[in-house]
Amino acid sequence: MKTFKLKTLALAAALPAALVAGPAIAHDHAAKAAPAMPAATYAPITEAEVLAAQQAWGNALVAIATEYDTKGFAAAKKLAEQVVDGAYGYQMGPVLFKPTLAAAPQTFRTDREGAIAYFVGGNDRYKGDTGFAIKGWRAFEIDNAGILLKGNSATSMGNVTVIDAKGNRTTVDKTWGYVRGPDGKLRIVLHHSSLPYKAG
Amino acid sequence: MKTFKLKTLALAAALPAALVAGPAIAHDHAAKAAPAMPAATYAPITEAEVLAAQQAWGNALVAIATEYDTKGFAAAKKLAEQVVDGAYGYQMGPVLFKPTLAAAPQTFRTDREGAIAYFVGGNDRYKGDTGFAIKGWRAFEIDNAGILLKGNSATSMGNVTVIDAKGNRTTVDKTWGYVRGPDGKLRIVLHHSSLPYKAG
Amino acid sequence: MKTFKLKTLALAAALPAALVAGPAIAHDHAAKAAPAMPAATYAPITEAEVLAAQQAWGNALVAIATEYDTKGFAAAKKLAEQVVDGAYGYQMGPVLFKPTLAAAPQTFRTDREGAIAYFVGGNDRYKGDTGFAIKGWRAFEIDNAGILLKGNSATSMGNVTVIDAKGNRTTVDKTWGYVRGPDGKLRIVLHHSSLPYKAG
Amino acid sequence: MKTFKLKTLALAAALPAALVAGPAIAHDHAAKAAPAMPAATYAPITEAEVLAAQQAWGNALVAIATEYDTKGFAAAKKLAEQVVDGAYGYQMGPVLFKPTLAAAPQTFRTDREGAIAYFVGGNDRYKGDTGFAIKGWRAFEIDNAGILLKGNSATSMGNVTVIDAKGNRTTVDKTWGYVRGPDGKLRIVLHHSSLPYKAG
Repeated sequence: MKTFKLKTLALAAALPAALVAGPAIAHDHAAKAAPAMPAATYAPITEAEVLAAQQAWGNALVAIATEYDTKGFAAAKKLAEQVVDGAYGYQMGPVLFKPTLAAAPQTFRTDREGAIAYFVGGNDRYKGDTGFAIKGWRAFEIDNAGILLKGNSATSMGNVTVIDAKGNRTTVDKTWGYVRGPDGKLRIVLHHSSLPYKAG
Repeated sequence: MKTFKLKTLALAAALPAALVAGPAIAHDHAAKAAPAMPAATYAPITEAEVLAAQQAWGNALVAIATEYDTKGFAAAKKLAEQVVDGAYGYQMGPVLFKPTLAAAPQTFRTDREGAIAYFVGGNDRYKGDTGFAIKGWRAFEIDNAGILLKGNSATSMGNVTVIDAKGNRTTVDKTWGYVRGPDGKLRIVLHHSSLPYKAG
Repeated sequence: MKTFKLKTLALAAALPAALVAGPAIAHDHAAKAAPAMPAATYAPITEAEVLAAQQAWGNALVAIATEYDTKGFAAAKKLAEQVVDGAYGYQMGPVLFKPTLAAAPQTFRTDREGAIAYFVGGNDRYKGDTGFAIKGWRAFEIDNAGILLKGNSATSMGNVTVIDAKGNRTTVDKTWGYVRGPDGKLRIVLHHSSLPYKAG
Repeated sequence: MKTFKLKTLALAAALPAALVAGPAIAHDHAAKAAPAMPAATYAPITEAEVLAAQQAWGNALVAIATEYDTKGFAAAKKLAEQVVDGAYGYQMGPVLFKPTLAAAPQTFRTDREGAIAYFVGGNDRYKGDTGFAIKGWRAFEIDNAGILLKGNSATSMGNVTVIDAKGNRTTVDKTWGYVRGPDGKLRIVLHHSSLPYKAG
């Protein structure tokens, strides 16, 4: 983001220097970076934010898997709840989430419970879910085919590869859509993941 | 905004295929109104929200004036602070505010302190401010020339008339710009008010 | 969209009645519906527009298939080009398109040529494409799991079922993302389609 | 905005995995700047675009004044029409325009005719308009108090000073609001200009 310099120093000087405790998106005579303050909810989403959110998702997946392997199901579930609340937008309304391995009639997980069930399983209402996030993942790679920035939302599409402790790799086709949450941080409100198509 | 809970997939499955027919921002098979939940920060701003925010501004002005006349400066200032925090977006970053009667070098009040000083005066750093909101206002009228809805922001322009206890009327030309705050409610981030031009 | 009535008829009368030749999104004292004019490019996307765009996509698929069966490849390809140009946003930049049956290294069709190849095949650079749109489709059904409206963009997720002349049904999990084109009409800029997951 | 052409999928495949590193709105493996293509209508508005649009407005004002002084009213009016069509959004719907010197009942110029009348006068339906743009302006200065970027719209507020051939300076308080036009270029859809307040 470029900022701009003013001409009228008199006016700038008249304003208290610390007043613009604002996000990078809004500039002012006496603008100073205020790194502690999150972006305003209306600030346009940047590519850097999308890339950071993708990394956060991958790190969270590995963290849940590691938690499960070292501390067990309860700890992993608790972490998964925190991840879902922090990374997804279920607290803002429904989320469009089609997990890789979910099937009808529970293909789409538009509510929080369905997302957590998918990640860690152990929910009688989602008997098909064995817990995707607790399959021993230790690393990930993200290869974007493209990212679209649309102002107050953004979308990415590409391949995500998750890697377990033995080095086994699973690659999926993945779309993520983001908006800003009330705290200025990105939240996933769209997630479509699918196994690659194999001809015949 | 209406949000929803997906109660059961069974219900969803029982609905006809052509179902996504409701209003509002996020829809789902089993959509139910959830009136306690504020609009998602990404929900498009509606005209009804803009009109409600305008009425809230007018009501707040009358409330501050009445508080001053009945309870004095300290109470009026406290109320003004609440109004500024609730109706404007200073906590999201700078606000573009050109009050009717503000003059250089303090024409633009991009920070919270400058806005409060304009409304109630009594701030040594804004000696020209005598307190616009404490001038005995008892009623108001808003006559929009137009409203533009732009998705995550909206703008209105028109005349606002404030009326004191004696029936004296003051009409200004006013532009307001809105975004959603972190709580889903509209916040003013643009306010340009000016006295009508009178030819020579 | 609700419009609003004004108080001050004097001002309204002073404005020429036909002045607001505008889209439904912007209102004015003398506002009249101007049905011929498309929505302003900044007008918030409505659910009705999303549903209409979905129907248009399904109708186009059937039209291409019918064109192929009745007039042959050249006619079908020409129609597919028109459909891609009218329904997708390739002329606005890249589109994130993961077709149902596309595989690596050509999974993602971010350019126009890749989309047309997928729909009708016959392109040596996309040898895996046999033409999804020319498989005899005669009807379709769309069952949305949810639609998110985000101001200047919108996203839908759900099932789309395509039906051939013999009544054979193919259901896929589908995400579509829309923005407005320069003509005010919706364009698909995101399309992730996948076969339903079947547990081993 | 930079857009791109996907030249070959081979090139895309040859790129390293961590590639989505470019600037701008839409990224892709083989992203290349395509300077001839305008920004997608959904591309977030940047500060640089706002500053450029402000300069274009000032240059246009000087151009109209100069055209009037050297070629007369008809030429100036023709240029003003081009300027209004190129810089404002009247072709997208109503514009919220409160010119500096316009008075009731014609304070707000929500249609094209009212804007042109204000700039060059000579319109019997706007008898108060003497042509603001034909007053001998030769230079201008813009001093922003702040710019807010909101994704698909942006707003600026500050002082604009216009300077005539004799060096006389007129400073106004000015708010401009922008959206993208169908061609990807910014258009003014909000313009509130007022003479500075002078305390009695």
